[in-house]
Amino acid sequence: MALYAVIPAGGSGTRLWPASRTARPKFLLPLPGPLSMLQATVERLLPLVPPANMLIVTGASHADAVAAQVPEIPEGNIIVEPQARGTGPAIGLAAALFARRDPDAIMGSFAADHHVADPIAFRQAIRAAAEAAREGYLVTVGIKPTYPETGYGYIRCGEILFHREGLAVHAVEEFKEKPDLATAERYVASGQYQWNASMFVWRAQTLLDAMRRLLPDVYELLTEIAAAWDRPDRAETMERLWAQLPEVTIDHGIMEHADNVAVVPASFGWTDLGDWHSLAELLASEKDDNVALGAEHIATDTRGTLVFGDGRVIATLGVEDLVIVDTDDVLLVCHRSRAQDVRRIVERLRGQGDQRLL
Amino acid sequence: MALYAVIPAGGSGTRLWPASRTARPKFLLPLPGPLSMLQATVERLLPLVPPANMLIVTGASHADAVAAQVPEIPEGNIIVEPQARGTGPAIGLAAALFARRDPDAIMGSFAADHHVADPIAFRQAIRAAAEAAREGYLVTVGIKPTYPETGYGYIRCGEILFHREGLAVHAVEEFKEKPDLATAERYVASGQYQWNASMFVWRAQTLLDAMRRLLPDVYELLTEIAAAWDRPDRAETMERLWAQLPEVTIDHGIMEHADNVAVVPASFGWTDLGDWHSLAELLASEKDDNVALGAEHIATDTRGTLVFGDGRVIATLGVEDLVIVDTDDVLLVCHRSRAQDVRRIVERLRGQGDQRLL
Repeated sequence: MALYAVIPAGGSGTRLWPASRTARPKFLLPLPGPLSMLQATVERLLPLVPPANMLIVTGASHADAVAAQVPEIPEGNIIVEPQARGTGPAIGLAAALFARRDPDAIMGSFAADHHVADPIAFRQAIRAAAEAAREGYLVTVGIKPTYPETGYGYIRCGEILFHREGLAVHAVEEFKEKPDLATAERYVASGQYQWNASMFVWRAQTLLDAMRRLLPDVYELLTEIAAAWDRPDRAETMERLWAQLPEVTIDHGIMEHADNVAVVPASFGWTDLGDWHSLAELLASEKDDNVALGAEHIATDTRGTLVFGDGRVIATLGVEDLVIVDTDDVLLVCHRSRAQDVRRIVERLRGQGDQRLL
Repeated sequence: MALYAVIPAGGSGTRLWPASRTARPKFLLPLPGPLSMLQATVERLLPLVPPANMLIVTGASHADAVAAQVPEIPEGNIIVEPQARGTGPAIGLAAALFARRDPDAIMGSFAADHHVADPIAFRQAIRAAAEAAREGYLVTVGIKPTYPETGYGYIRCGEILFHREGLAVHAVEEFKEKPDLATAERYVASGQYQWNASMFVWRAQTLLDAMRRLLPDVYELLTEIAAAWDRPDRAETMERLWAQLPEVTIDHGIMEHADNVAVVPASFGWTDLGDWHSLAELLASEKDDNVALGAEHIATDTRGTLVFGDGRVIATLGVEDLVIVDTDDVLLVCHRSRAQDVRRIVERLRGQGDQRLL
């Protein structure tokens, strides 16, 4: 069964500043390397999805870098958004294009900047989700939570609908926004909740049907764009209609309101690598371990410290739990406990109209 | 009264690595800037010592950089040591050369890498020392201690011999090696001890007389070199005889054994700026202050942190009491409490035969 896939490649990842920049967003970075996050995403999908069936949706300023990173993907499969409109239009357009090619197409949607440690378990979950999609469900792959994370949304699982590929497929009772810590602890203890990684599998037509009902304006515009796709006026149509689309995510626009949503709980070492601390957590083999990416680290009496660089030597002495990010024009030294607040530096620079370092 | 002066410009300052390197020692660095430590040393002496009376003794690998930094000093006054032999031979040779020019020459010796906050008070102390030197004393300028430093030697003051320029000139009872903390505290509390900054003033002939008695081999060799100074065989003589000199400091070789030593206790904001912590102490106006030298510092929730760089932006978040030193090929992040141990990194690199970063 050859699947289809769309990879929305957007977002800048401001918490990974200064490695992540407007011109060099998170998905293009070698985190944890050596492949970029986008390259690793394509790599783990290729055994399920032939290159011709894979679409990448990205911004105009990143199209060249994306094409250079994934030479196996036909250039025509890299779709340039005139403006960022969230995952709703990006994924919806891919569904419309896939459905035109293959009315029975089963497709998945996968963020370009998430990390998966175990690609074999990942593909097993995707195959199970594809089986459920064949039954007409909008399927989300839920991540079995390993700790009470407050930065993710959660999915409350209902009854088991059936089993596929050795995995249970549940009805979804409810999507929950990012909880506070006490609520997250309750979720994890209950065993009934999964992290929402915004990883979806469905028949392209099933999504389009839901979109026609739940986001009719979006549906109309995307249908019109898809109809022009093989005509000479594709670019003009895209330019003109895309601007009229609202900004909406698939999660808010479709999944939270549809009544045919299923979830496949799975474990494959998923993390969104949202910040430097989570990268250090991922890579440190022991609590006291230091992690060096792209830099030579000369560590003396140093613990729990991540250095990320581009060849220069970084020496540390008598420090603990730091993140040190070395780039051409700016250096960041941050305590790991403050990794979430790196975005504040970016916001401050933006607020000052200081474009140099963004 | 025109004085003479010698500035031994040696030592690498390994605790100020990686700014300080074999090829770019501490005395050539802009600490605290904008002048280098050597330039600032010359600058505060010029009102007392005409350029023609000033000798700088340095290693062959630094002679060009020294000449470039102090264009006012005649090039012939920059003496290149074939090998480093400590301050004894360097200062002794200067004394021999000065005495040949002017049998009554009164000279001072001043390290090239010490910081003086108040040059007016400094010159007042040197003038007082020069008056005492005229009386036939080997005079050292003692620094009134401001805290129980264990990294310096101390001088125990005896009776007051006389006053000059409003300052008391004491007999010296004893030179003390670097003490432990309890001893240093006792020294400071007693009011009888001064820091030994290895800052000396004497009649050139008085030093030569002491040297003839206390270091006769050194005296003979230096006399022979000085005699050849204006002959065509100067370079050959220097090369041949310098290698035969023992390595000895003026402190150990002369001052600790002579019986005509006097001290002028003075306060002029002296520090040897031996490590990054002392530089931060010097420049921070309040306890929580950060200090940025040569780098743009974007500080968020950051306290007591020194950044030293060369133009690149350094952003910090949620850190305290760090030293961050940014150079072309290596970056150091060090806790201020470990500033003394920076030399351990240098020793480790040296031990590994790793010349790149030394």
